[in-house]
Amino acid sequence: MSEDRRWIVGLDIGGTNMVVGLVPFEGGPPMAMRKLPTRPEGGGKDVVARASDAIGAAVDEVLQATGGNREDVLGVGIGSPGPLNRTTGTVLETPNLGWVDFPLRDLVSRAVDLPATLDNDANCATFGEWWLGAGRESRVLVGMTLGTGIGGGLVLNGEIHHGASDAAGEFGHMTIDSMGRRCNCGNYGCLEAYASGPNIAARAVEGIRAGVESVLEDLVDGHLDRVTAATVYEAVVLGDPYAREVMNETAKFLAVGVANLINALNPEIVVIAGGVTRAGDHLFIPLRKEVRRRAFRSAVAACRILPAALPETAGVIGAAAVFKKETFGFL
Amino acid sequence: MSEDRRWIVGLDIGGTNMVVGLVPFEGGPPMAMRKLPTRPEGGGKDVVARASDAIGAAVDEVLQATGGNREDVLGVGIGSPGPLNRTTGTVLETPNLGWVDFPLRDLVSRAVDLPATLDNDANCATFGEWWLGAGRESRVLVGMTLGTGIGGGLVLNGEIHHGASDAAGEFGHMTIDSMGRRCNCGNYGCLEAYASGPNIAARAVEGIRAGVESVLEDLVDGHLDRVTAATVYEAVVLGDPYAREVMNETAKFLAVGVANLINALNPEIVVIAGGVTRAGDHLFIPLRKEVRRRAFRSAVAACRILPAALPETAGVIGAAAVFKKETFGFL
Repeated sequence: MSEDRRWIVGLDIGGTNMVVGLVPFEGGPPMAMRKLPTRPEGGGKDVVARASDAIGAAVDEVLQATGGNREDVLGVGIGSPGPLNRTTGTVLETPNLGWVDFPLRDLVSRAVDLPATLDNDANCATFGEWWLGAGRESRVLVGMTLGTGIGGGLVLNGEIHHGASDAAGEFGHMTIDSMGRRCNCGNYGCLEAYASGPNIAARAVEGIRAGVESVLEDLVDGHLDRVTAATVYEAVVLGDPYAREVMNETAKFLAVGVANLINALNPEIVVIAGGVTRAGDHLFIPLRKEVRRRAFRSAVAACRILPAALPETAGVIGAAAVFKKETFGFL
Repeated sequence: MSEDRRWIVGLDIGGTNMVVGLVPFEGGPPMAMRKLPTRPEGGGKDVVARASDAIGAAVDEVLQATGGNREDVLGVGIGSPGPLNRTTGTVLETPNLGWVDFPLRDLVSRAVDLPATLDNDANCATFGEWWLGAGRESRVLVGMTLGTGIGGGLVLNGEIHHGASDAAGEFGHMTIDSMGRRCNCGNYGCLEAYASGPNIAARAVEGIRAGVESVLEDLVDGHLDRVTAATVYEAVVLGDPYAREVMNETAKFLAVGVANLINALNPEIVVIAGGVTRAGDHLFIPLRKEVRRRAFRSAVAACRILPAALPETAGVIGAAAVFKKETFGFL
């Protein structure tokens, strides 16, 4: 057992929930994990206050269980939707949270009296998978998280690729059909407009409205507005042919995006995270097949497309990893 | 004036021509440049023999002019179409040249009795622009060369991003319309299927065949099979409304690819090279406008989209730069 009793707090803020946990300095599963609703409508300061309470409770829990001291907790790594400015620790704007120029890092740091770092949530999730998950040891790692939106991250030679203004990794807004479906971002044909959770559900409902028969309709008692991506997986598992067709098409759309990233970046590993990966082989088999068809042979041969190994904890682990890397220079 | 009299040979092999020049060790315009037809149909060994003769003649010319010694010429950097294996110095396959597992680097090295390095031609062109051209000092540089095909390169923190198997940078085969035009690669809707030279010409001809009136038809005396991308620029310069429409559409297709790369990588600079850039503002003004519409604001604000500064010499300079970097570890 490691003698190192030091900890880093990971705080992963999402549009719906936020997750807190203490990550061992040398790496390992987070301790004292807690998940609480973000409730952005209460304002940023309320979110910070409740996140800080959760951090305080998690720290107490771990220190009591291990007999450690307050000094063993080195700091807080924060993951947040962006765009953000890592240097100032400010969230520039988040449509989901309603924040504009919000000094998230320093507010959390002051509230819990610990140093803190801030990075993009999708970057953190990818960095977590690189440190301890499906992307371990890879020199070129592409991460994609399919949820309400599609987030992305890129880890090159052990470093998150942030780009010129901390804006890199927006794989969800890659155009795959320049005259295609309207996206929330205002553009047309973004990957997200096809393969995010709400858009998987929307595509499924469109077919049913057009007259296709499916168990999906029974699963929501005829209330088609209640169909979610989770309902689609449920119908897939029940063997519903239409739901499987929707999942197949989802895999094909996703494959266009993945193949584009493989052709551009020649990664060793592409990690796919998010609810949609619960579909397992129903997603990954057609996904890998379509990528093979679309991307260059030598690039495909060098790349594994894997589900996330840390679906619940990558965000917290990666946020803590960013703190460690920025503070100590190594992981 | 620099005291350094050392030189590195750059050899840039393309499907149609190859270019040779001697690049000053400290950087600068290549001396004793010569361009000769590649003539791949004569076989790889013939190409190597003629390239080596050209290198020999260029070296003699420079050494005579400067009174230098043979030891002042340190080696040869070779740029070639890929995919290739940089470690073994082998070209794996090139549809344009017909080579399979061709040990290009060692054959050239032996023929000219100098150490040599091998890298992808589009990587070299981008690296040349990074070292001495439009991308100088940038931390994140995306390069795109529009010719018979569309080549790409990526320079991150002063290093070419090669990826897991030297296959990165295939921006031409990014899908921008998943059910779009057929590409030479067998896929559908690749950027190259819209914005390469032959495809610009093909799109222009399609419209004329469909009945659009254009000076293009006069420029080729009615032989529509003779329309090339160069004919389209000529018609643009003559003010032909249809040719301008074709150029505008080209800019829009190109913008989809550029916006995808800006969203994914958040570059400081995107350099566009190749014949199509002769269209100047007719290309760049609609290109920048459409990119602004498609990519994220903070990423667009951080990025300049520029024509190549070294349109004739970036390949030779970049090939020499790869040799210098691999041999000495710095540029």
